[in-house]
Amino acid sequence: MTHNVAILGASGYTGAELVRIIATHPGLRIAALSADRKAGRPMSAVFPNLRHLDLPTLCTIDEIDFSQIELVFCALPHGLSQALVRDLPMGVKVVDLGADFRLRDPKAYEKWYGAKHCAVELQETAVYGLTEFYRDQIRDARLVAGTGCNAATVQFALRPLIEAALIDLDDIICDLKNGISGAGRSLKENMLFAERSTDVMGYSLGSVHRHLSEFDQEFSALAGRPVEISFAPHLVPVNRGILASCHVKGDAKAIHAALEARYADEPFVVVLPLGQAPGMGQVTGSNFCHVGVVGDRRPGRALVVSTLDNLNKGSSGQAVQNANLMLGLPETQGLMLAPVFP
Amino acid sequence: MTHNVAILGASGYTGAELVRIIATHPGLRIAALSADRKAGRPMSAVFPNLRHLDLPTLCTIDEIDFSQIELVFCALPHGLSQALVRDLPMGVKVVDLGADFRLRDPKAYEKWYGAKHCAVELQETAVYGLTEFYRDQIRDARLVAGTGCNAATVQFALRPLIEAALIDLDDIICDLKNGISGAGRSLKENMLFAERSTDVMGYSLGSVHRHLSEFDQEFSALAGRPVEISFAPHLVPVNRGILASCHVKGDAKAIHAALEARYADEPFVVVLPLGQAPGMGQVTGSNFCHVGVVGDRRPGRALVVSTLDNLNKGSSGQAVQNANLMLGLPETQGLMLAPVFP
Amino acid sequence: MTHNVAILGASGYTGAELVRIIATHPGLRIAALSADRKAGRPMSAVFPNLRHLDLPTLCTIDEIDFSQIELVFCALPHGLSQALVRDLPMGVKVVDLGADFRLRDPKAYEKWYGAKHCAVELQETAVYGLTEFYRDQIRDARLVAGTGCNAATVQFALRPLIEAALIDLDDIICDLKNGISGAGRSLKENMLFAERSTDVMGYSLGSVHRHLSEFDQEFSALAGRPVEISFAPHLVPVNRGILASCHVKGDAKAIHAALEARYADEPFVVVLPLGQAPGMGQVTGSNFCHVGVVGDRRPGRALVVSTLDNLNKGSSGQAVQNANLMLGLPETQGLMLAPVFP
Amino acid sequence: MTHNVAILGASGYTGAELVRIIATHPGLRIAALSADRKAGRPMSAVFPNLRHLDLPTLCTIDEIDFSQIELVFCALPHGLSQALVRDLPMGVKVVDLGADFRLRDPKAYEKWYGAKHCAVELQETAVYGLTEFYRDQIRDARLVAGTGCNAATVQFALRPLIEAALIDLDDIICDLKNGISGAGRSLKENMLFAERSTDVMGYSLGSVHRHLSEFDQEFSALAGRPVEISFAPHLVPVNRGILASCHVKGDAKAIHAALEARYADEPFVVVLPLGQAPGMGQVTGSNFCHVGVVGDRRPGRALVVSTLDNLNKGSSGQAVQNANLMLGLPETQGLMLAPVFP
Repeated sequence: MTHNVAILGASGYTGAELVRIIATHPGLRIAALSADRKAGRPMSAVFPNLRHLDLPTLCTIDEIDFSQIELVFCALPHGLSQALVRDLPMGVKVVDLGADFRLRDPKAYEKWYGAKHCAVELQETAVYGLTEFYRDQIRDARLVAGTGCNAATVQFALRPLIEAALIDLDDIICDLKNGISGAGRSLKENMLFAERSTDVMGYSLGSVHRHLSEFDQEFSALAGRPVEISFAPHLVPVNRGILASCHVKGDAKAIHAALEARYADEPFVVVLPLGQAPGMGQVTGSNFCHVGVVGDRRPGRALVVSTLDNLNKGSSGQAVQNANLMLGLPETQGLMLAPVFP
Repeated sequence: MTHNVAILGASGYTGAELVRIIATHPGLRIAALSADRKAGRPMSAVFPNLRHLDLPTLCTIDEIDFSQIELVFCALPHGLSQALVRDLPMGVKVVDLGADFRLRDPKAYEKWYGAKHCAVELQETAVYGLTEFYRDQIRDARLVAGTGCNAATVQFALRPLIEAALIDLDDIICDLKNGISGAGRSLKENMLFAERSTDVMGYSLGSVHRHLSEFDQEFSALAGRPVEISFAPHLVPVNRGILASCHVKGDAKAIHAALEARYADEPFVVVLPLGQAPGMGQVTGSNFCHVGVVGDRRPGRALVVSTLDNLNKGSSGQAVQNANLMLGLPETQGLMLAPVFP
Repeated sequence: MTHNVAILGASGYTGAELVRIIATHPGLRIAALSADRKAGRPMSAVFPNLRHLDLPTLCTIDEIDFSQIELVFCALPHGLSQALVRDLPMGVKVVDLGADFRLRDPKAYEKWYGAKHCAVELQETAVYGLTEFYRDQIRDARLVAGTGCNAATVQFALRPLIEAALIDLDDIICDLKNGISGAGRSLKENMLFAERSTDVMGYSLGSVHRHLSEFDQEFSALAGRPVEISFAPHLVPVNRGILASCHVKGDAKAIHAALEARYADEPFVVVLPLGQAPGMGQVTGSNFCHVGVVGDRRPGRALVVSTLDNLNKGSSGQAVQNANLMLGLPETQGLMLAPVFP
Repeated sequence: MTHNVAILGASGYTGAELVRIIATHPGLRIAALSADRKAGRPMSAVFPNLRHLDLPTLCTIDEIDFSQIELVFCALPHGLSQALVRDLPMGVKVVDLGADFRLRDPKAYEKWYGAKHCAVELQETAVYGLTEFYRDQIRDARLVAGTGCNAATVQFALRPLIEAALIDLDDIICDLKNGISGAGRSLKENMLFAERSTDVMGYSLGSVHRHLSEFDQEFSALAGRPVEISFAPHLVPVNRGILASCHVKGDAKAIHAALEARYADEPFVVVLPLGQAPGMGQVTGSNFCHVGVVGDRRPGRALVVSTLDNLNKGSSGQAVQNANLMLGLPETQGLMLAPVFP
């Protein structure tokens, strides 16, 4: 049985990645694609890589008949989902790929995003979309909030360690290397090819990146006390991928064992042998996350490295994984595409 | 029903691409993977992107029990397949991805490859693996010779035009832009990242590239007279993709109409609207070939641009497409993966 | 003695490249830098690579006291130089890097640029800035029009051949590979890193690129009859560089000999041995142009390949070379920077 | 007056970078270029970017008449300089770009490089070549040991802070992003373009990289007690550049003030305003090092970011800077080339 879905914000990279994944997903059918500024155009004009597919023409959100839609993927810019989701028919399930419903606390939202939330009641009931850790709630949810792509990458490395109290909670330093597609398709001078192609540059340094709000929420809940990590993302000239180098204080062997145990049955999280760290290029285009642990020359210190494709496992792949659960489909359906290398 | 296949030469890029494709192919099962120099190692050590798969350990060719294998993919360096295929049990079907069986004429082989062919009888009966043009023979073949990746790209642009006598056969100039993965995984100084990443360079210029032997064979047969094209490939700093700019003398409209008619029912060849040319990045990681036609300001001249992924449609995707036919499976099975962009 | 110069349009790439070159030029002193939208900011905020230099703050053009300026470099978008140059004091020499004064014929300008020229009298007297071929006129000129970067690249390959009637004038096909910086710093979706970094794509295909107006003007004048070439530029994921593959009918040996003879005494044009073609990466960041000739397997056909750095020899380096002549300085002063590789 | 120099190991990237720098250096003259395996070939065949220069043919070291040489640059693989330098005439000054003379302690050398040093007496007297900190000794030295490129990058960030006891010496975490050219020109599968161009990967993780020996030596000497940092380099798909993100405990304001004060008069080290961090692309092709400081959201923590071009300031530029001092030339001579961007 196929389920009708709509993708709102189909002209951005995560929207296109949803289409790419669903193209070979046997359980989902794309019934509507919205892109307000590009409404009326065929998807192939906006993403020629999807030219072989028979897709609905891009439309405005208003033009969608939601009575025909079972689940909506919202791939809209931050701030736009709130009112929209509030006004959708209650029978429509929602996977939101933006930031609007990631934080349960309205004050935290206001602090990090600089505006009052306009659908506070929804915000409080939305389920945080890190599938491997919220699987049961997601299955029953009407609204799932996709995680930040950085937030997902680091949590795969650290959640089991924080939960098991294996690392010093006051000395977690996460240094990230981020592919450029994470910046989206909007026009910014410093995202031009000529600016980025031979540069590596930190951004939102000083632990001021908005994804920290997710770490604060999740890690503090796990630890039962406030946890604040340091976080430094860097743009690298690669399209897809996030590699998180998490410098922690703890025993490498114990850390590795905890990760192996935690992810032993997870289809999408792979733990490398102790002493090996993954490269960003080995998960490109897939829903896999690879994690590795290397002990430091100084005992009691370790490096935990995790990597995933920001557009896929960090966003659209995760969204489909959650949609599978919400629709009663097998969790891995349509998501076993092997990473593309080279 | 699943068919057991073996991949010989699994430690190269086309070998790994075969594994990647077959990973989500419902009709094929990888029963053996050979890589002489890396025998004994797990595939994940050689291609960490395939780490999530349950694959046979790399072995030598001698260690394979071919009685359990229905079809063999040979992804070996040029020259090594001849003796090997000759000695395989006759019941085993073969898709050879190398150059050994592309030329039907032993003299042509000797001229272009500088050595006598050691399995001339096989050479003469092998079917040229350009699926869209040899479909019926491939269905019944025991041995199919995968085309050169450049050869495939250009033929998709030009075969229908030569066949229909729509272009001047004496003035065909093909200027190619080639992704680096086409050079394979062997160690050459000029394939180092530092050498290639900010360079664009012609190679095998003067129409001396070995793939010309395929054009000479195929185009002359089509035209019923000798046809020699000029051919200039250039390395560009991209991993995957070939973009062929074919400068021809002929009427753009007629050319476009002929291509559209010819490929109307082909699942993997997409013709763009007249006046549009495809970009290399819109077929990455897929078995699709996109073709476009643009008329020149000077009447009677046109540019025909075709593009495909050299590792996929130009090699391993084509190989699986042929294997599907040879094994009685649906031709598109496992091959509808949408191109990855960005 | 140092000469005071001003750079108008200093916030674009060619403006920055002028500053970079002049930074170690002993004969020029930057007295003013304009950038209308970024006026008031230091150059280091716009180009951090120039942070070590002591430069004037960016200002508007109106704020410049031209009585202190001996020569002005105009690195403005097309169309903006005309009125500006017309209104400059006559004592100020001008090197215009844009397209406004490249065409001597007002009708040709109107045809290719879609607007009437507003300083026709200047247009007719401006000297075309291809230094190696207009050296004497440039020395005495008040206004020199920098060439298009593509136009420069191809002319280095073809001018001596057209002049000496060594090639068939009706069958010249120029297939270019163009670095992205040629598109400038303005915001366009298809110039984002994510769009370009794994793509190669033709643009302005069908010989409709505006630089054709320069070829038509120059080649026709050289040949004494109308000459129209076919011209197909392609964007490749490299920052700097143009590689022109010129497919011509003529004798490779004679062509090579003519180029060698013509450029024997030119400090910036290097002809490779017959049979070798240059790579784009060997002239990066320099004022050099490398040219090579390879004969085709079909007698009477040849490939002439030329390459230069579009921002340097194709634009700002050429501009400084011309300024040197106009100011009575040694032509090579400040321009002998060796290409950067890797 | 020009000084005759020889470059040993001219076929590697640091050798070529020496030639590139010296090409426009008014005080140095290249009298000999050695490259054992490529002896007899012109430099232009090995580095076509240097084709315009009139250079000596590559020779073997034995063929060099050292009586004509005032200073030798050794750009040889690690381990080869020791015996060589020992046997050079005492009148020849030496700048060694390799690792052989960086460590003063023979035991430390043996521990990190796995072999006994064969010129211990020279090792003990060699001056460590970090110009900004060893200027006076370098002026009088006969043998100067160029620093590791990573070692230079991090020391520019941390030396003044360790010396002034502004940071916690037990909690220094250096996370580096390294351009690929640092791996040199030797053939390794994982340095192929296809392997590296879409990957980011840590290497020598766990603080086992050999450059740590330099940190241990230098930082411990500065602090007057053993200092061990954690160090994690990562390969990023850029040719040139190292960006060091140093996560430290200390007051950002005080750290910034100390760096500004220390580098106020240094021509090649630029400190950005507090709160700004440099990008790798702003020093490409130059002898400049840019340093920035950003405070963390958690008081008492800061990120110090430094960046330089590994082939230039991290190696060949530093070598020329040292040679200038050793030969009595102005320290900045030939080294003011502005960084290339984009």
